[in-house]
Amino acid sequence: MKTPSSLAYLTEALRRLPGIGPKSAQRIAYHMMQHDREGAGMLGRALTQAVERIHHCALCNTFTESEICETCADEERDRSLLCVVETPGDQVMIEQTLTFKGLYFVLMGHLSPLDGIGPKDIHLERLIARASDGAVKEVILATNFTNEGEATAHYISETLKARGLKVTRLARGVPVGGELEHVDAGTIARAMLDRRAT
Amino acid sequence: MKTPSSLAYLTEALRRLPGIGPKSAQRIAYHMMQHDREGAGMLGRALTQAVERIHHCALCNTFTESEICETCADEERDRSLLCVVETPGDQVMIEQTLTFKGLYFVLMGHLSPLDGIGPKDIHLERLIARASDGAVKEVILATNFTNEGEATAHYISETLKARGLKVTRLARGVPVGGELEHVDAGTIARAMLDRRAT
Repeated sequence: MKTPSSLAYLTEALRRLPGIGPKSAQRIAYHMMQHDREGAGMLGRALTQAVERIHHCALCNTFTESEICETCADEERDRSLLCVVETPGDQVMIEQTLTFKGLYFVLMGHLSPLDGIGPKDIHLERLIARASDGAVKEVILATNFTNEGEATAHYISETLKARGLKVTRLARGVPVGGELEHVDAGTIARAMLDRRAT
Repeated sequence: MKTPSSLAYLTEALRRLPGIGPKSAQRIAYHMMQHDREGAGMLGRALTQAVERIHHCALCNTFTESEICETCADEERDRSLLCVVETPGDQVMIEQTLTFKGLYFVLMGHLSPLDGIGPKDIHLERLIARASDGAVKEVILATNFTNEGEATAHYISETLKARGLKVTRLARGVPVGGELEHVDAGTIARAMLDRRAT
């Protein structure tokens, strides 16, 4: 018995989604063909359209449909502050805090030598050019506080400081609402070292 | 900050996949746009093509691109045996055993009154018509041995037997390689009841 070729092709294509193995791909293909053809058609169009239209902002490297993204094009933003984040999702989180009115640079990843992800893959040359435009006075590193994120921040910091730029990092410490009993020792140690006058 | 509309549309469309929530959808959308545009384009085409081409076999109800699927069209198959399965995946499993040379009917689901899935949704009228074609001598019920599968088998069995058809069910018992110590009591009880002369 042969699976119809367009169904076999669909199953194969579904495996390109992250975390989807052969069994899941087949289950999803059957589900979509049986119960949600409208959703399948919609997803098909969405993928084709996104591949055509989405590219990277020439300034901040985030996803956009224009040459320059909305944030970078916004005249109201403070051009002296540049916040470096790993992903567009991180950028959205920072925007939601309403505490930052500067511009961004989105690395689209983090350094990870073991996975073969080096400075070129996180667009370091473009970040250097962007930070050296004369308008930027401070680069705020907002990469994750994971091992990879910390290493990435360290590397970028060294590179930019060597060019005479002011580089800062988001504060580390006890989370808001955190109870000391339930916070890990590393966080408390860092909060102790970075203690501030009240 | 606004997400580009085609990216927002893609994220929304990805949520139509079974088991994908808003966070996963965004993660997948970013991943595909950043790391696998070729895969995204391929999946887009595969979905569009599958929606256009795939429909149900007029005889056995499985997925096919033709009017009648390859199995039903195969002159070599034994037209006196009709095996009823829940999904095309189940049909593939039975084909792999090489023990069955008859034809199939694929329910594309099972009875589940709590989910509003009744006899009409498993195409029972079509199964009755198919089984009453005069050529079919025995209907073998190969639905799952779950509660829903058993209920479905029972319902179909009663319906077809009322029309004078011979209906059988796959044997239940201890799995090949099964150690009694690790087999559940229900299975052993059934194997005891269905014991056979050697």
